[in-house]
Amino acid sequence: MSETPVRTGRRTRGGGGAARRAERTAVSVETAKYIERNVPNYEVLTEEALDVIETNAETVLAEIGVDFLDNPAALDRWKAAGAEVTGERVRIPRGLARKLCATAPSQFTQHARNPERNVEIGGKNLVLAPIYGPPFVRDNEGGRRYATIADFEKFVKLGYMSKWLHHSGGTVCEPTDIAVNKRHLDMLLAHMIYSDKPFMGSVTEPSRAQDSVEMCEILFGKEFVQENTVMTSLININSPLTFDSVMMGALEVFAKNNQASIISPFIVGGAMAPVSIVGTLTQTLAEVMAGVAYSQLIRPGAPVIFGTFVASIDMNSGAPTFGTPEAAHITYGAGQLARRLGLPYRSAGSFCGSKLPDAQAAYETANSLQTGLLAGVNFMLHACGWLEGGMVASFEKFVLDADQLGVLHHFARGIDISENGQAMGAIAEVGPGGHYLGCAHTQANFKDAFWRTNVFDYKPFETWDEEGARDSQALAAVRVKRLLDTYQQPALDPEIEARLHEYVATKKASMPDAFI
Amino acid sequence: MSETPVRTGRRTRGGGGAARRAERTAVSVETAKYIERNVPNYEVLTEEALDVIETNAETVLAEIGVDFLDNPAALDRWKAAGAEVTGERVRIPRGLARKLCATAPSQFTQHARNPERNVEIGGKNLVLAPIYGPPFVRDNEGGRRYATIADFEKFVKLGYMSKWLHHSGGTVCEPTDIAVNKRHLDMLLAHMIYSDKPFMGSVTEPSRAQDSVEMCEILFGKEFVQENTVMTSLININSPLTFDSVMMGALEVFAKNNQASIISPFIVGGAMAPVSIVGTLTQTLAEVMAGVAYSQLIRPGAPVIFGTFVASIDMNSGAPTFGTPEAAHITYGAGQLARRLGLPYRSAGSFCGSKLPDAQAAYETANSLQTGLLAGVNFMLHACGWLEGGMVASFEKFVLDADQLGVLHHFARGIDISENGQAMGAIAEVGPGGHYLGCAHTQANFKDAFWRTNVFDYKPFETWDEEGARDSQALAAVRVKRLLDTYQQPALDPEIEARLHEYVATKKASMPDAFI
Repeated sequence: MSETPVRTGRRTRGGGGAARRAERTAVSVETAKYIERNVPNYEVLTEEALDVIETNAETVLAEIGVDFLDNPAALDRWKAAGAEVTGERVRIPRGLARKLCATAPSQFTQHARNPERNVEIGGKNLVLAPIYGPPFVRDNEGGRRYATIADFEKFVKLGYMSKWLHHSGGTVCEPTDIAVNKRHLDMLLAHMIYSDKPFMGSVTEPSRAQDSVEMCEILFGKEFVQENTVMTSLININSPLTFDSVMMGALEVFAKNNQASIISPFIVGGAMAPVSIVGTLTQTLAEVMAGVAYSQLIRPGAPVIFGTFVASIDMNSGAPTFGTPEAAHITYGAGQLARRLGLPYRSAGSFCGSKLPDAQAAYETANSLQTGLLAGVNFMLHACGWLEGGMVASFEKFVLDADQLGVLHHFARGIDISENGQAMGAIAEVGPGGHYLGCAHTQANFKDAFWRTNVFDYKPFETWDEEGARDSQALAAVRVKRLLDTYQQPALDPEIEARLHEYVATKKASMPDAFI
Repeated sequence: MSETPVRTGRRTRGGGGAARRAERTAVSVETAKYIERNVPNYEVLTEEALDVIETNAETVLAEIGVDFLDNPAALDRWKAAGAEVTGERVRIPRGLARKLCATAPSQFTQHARNPERNVEIGGKNLVLAPIYGPPFVRDNEGGRRYATIADFEKFVKLGYMSKWLHHSGGTVCEPTDIAVNKRHLDMLLAHMIYSDKPFMGSVTEPSRAQDSVEMCEILFGKEFVQENTVMTSLININSPLTFDSVMMGALEVFAKNNQASIISPFIVGGAMAPVSIVGTLTQTLAEVMAGVAYSQLIRPGAPVIFGTFVASIDMNSGAPTFGTPEAAHITYGAGQLARRLGLPYRSAGSFCGSKLPDAQAAYETANSLQTGLLAGVNFMLHACGWLEGGMVASFEKFVLDADQLGVLHHFARGIDISENGQAMGAIAEVGPGGHYLGCAHTQANFKDAFWRTNVFDYKPFETWDEEGARDSQALAAVRVKRLLDTYQQPALDPEIEARLHEYVATKKASMPDAFI
């Protein structure tokens, strides 16, 4: 297979002091392996509550039903599968959706062009991907503005350089300077060229999903794509209980091609779902089961993820709120439901409502990240960079959040109870009144014992004050600049790169710009 | 009993528009009941790991032992109890410490002068108390400066007005403008007068602990104090494995008087304990068991709390770090050990290393608060206001953290699976494609459905921008001012208040100022 992804990173080689200095000051592009949890999940729902929710979700599907809009072929598929179809309403007899879901894999590999960066989605794993979808960006210097393809490329580069990020994501921001009907091409190209991590396909039109598949065929080889999953894409359900033809059309393309979809209700509680936890979980389960079942009607065995996006609503302003206790309950509960359904689970992220990467943003984000880890999330979209309810991708928050993702990695390692972990020799050596800084056990273990930040400040007050009394946002801005200044593109076969460029140019030339 | 605490708050009464406006704009001084968890604890240690740690802790006590410094009476008590005493080293035979711990209550009531504000410490409960100990304060206007008694009083007032704070705390900041040997009197007076929530006693000298008891006898009545716990005070262990005579002397005073002590190793991992989780937990358990056992030698049944203060060390700067995954592991693990020992558990807090109430501070704090809730903590000291590794009490962070404590309350409520919680009627009423904003179920439930912030911003971007694009710190500064401007002192019997003032004046006049 001539199109095997290139496996090695490009490095500047050469003698001389400049090269050695460059080597010393180079920012590491090491990427951690996806998280394999060695800690238990937190489960907030009792068996009784889970049974109630599952029974009620079946009732919703059987008695209320779901709408598949503008999609006669979908209605035919449902009829053939045994559902009751009236107009565009599909009522799914009890048990049918769950039975159809059973052919979906509980875990799958998403391949990256660099095989070292393949991810396993499902089981005890957690794969972290950046923010998705914001029309605006914000940085410390320029403030808030519409996002451009230049911003997009910067985020892809930051994602590539982030040790704790396993996935390059999809629409890290909307490149609003490119026509709506063409920007997916530039976005995919950026992920393919500027990163070697796995990425997401386009879902805004079925034809754009098809373009995504075709570009992947250039990058990975046609046969490889048919046999392997190389994209995980985001299919939102129009909650409550509505499946539109654009999203379903994209899902159909991906499922047919064995590519993964996150089937995800988009819920602001109180608006798109009831104000209660159990009501929201019931609707979420019904929606995901209907969507996953539909994916399996397209191609049994197609990889899918049980998605849950939850925010509460601020009853004063109508704005979505994040990092709330209600969102946490739903995130924990949906994880239990996903595991009972045998599906990989997507939820949580760097969610916040704040306009700035300030304390509010960080409290909200930390609440959600911690919840996501303990809830058993397998794929965390929006794991870094989210600001202002998802309207804004923040450069500074991207690196702050990405740093916090290291906390999740270290926590998930679990606790070492080996003889070395027990450290009884150290306790005896140091004894009452001593200190451990120099003892043999500390010397042997300190390098790897504690998670270390790359962006937080722990300097003495006086030093920090003399250096300008910078807050997290200012420190993060320095890190953003340093990462982008030292970015080096991962190697890619020039022939493949040329063919990708050609594909994009040809496609773009084939249609007029559209801005809706 | 003439000294029964007054139960009702003082209110300005009167007719006229001004009074009604004042009523409408008054800041609520409602205090939530302490948290009674209706959610499970998160447990990270297996039974096997717990057994290893417990066995190793017994080995530490029996073979390495602990030092009781400058305290011959303590050594005599230990000898009489069956320990092996060599110099100041006390080696406690396997099983003895655990046996002595068994007389300590698993739960106790700490009384407040307003009985509605009594707290139950232990079981599934969580009591929240503010920051303790910082020599500096910081606010948005004045920056960082040495704390004064005026600052102290402001923090007591903020604590009194914080809905989610159940406890007034102790040394919310060090009033450095008062002599070291006298400031405990002013601090206690402030807690007694400006708040009606429960508080802590002084531990910096046994005589100051005695003063604390005597002032409580004025406030609550002498008999009441002997029969009831009215203070919970902080007794730190000088880790590793050292019990100094100041702290033990204070503990002795409190235990003799049936007053509660938190017996708490003070550990920066890598300095005062091994760099490993299990090693730190082993040392913590050994230290707490020795301290609790000693309290029970003083008075069997004296109320005590299993304390754990954990930070990691930043191996670059030597600074303590907070909100780390290692701290979380220790917090979860120590909770399991405390429950197996049958003791109330103190840990977690608004810990952070940041110099400002910025994103770093909030990530670190949120990580610790979430962990504390799920770890089964019963008494959370430092639950709000902590900055710069505990060197600084921040006014803005105090109200930001206090607001986040509401998240803990709402999460701990658990999940309502009643028919109303299931909301099946709402799902049927709204149906596919509808929205829930106006439906009957939402109308009936929205007021109480979601936790609401009192300080975060969810306004539309344009409004927020026009109002000055304020970050969390600026918004918090507004709230601090509003709370202090609207503060009203809770009623207290004037005779008691006069006697407290007299006690303080007499004590202060009886000794020269000392500044060490």
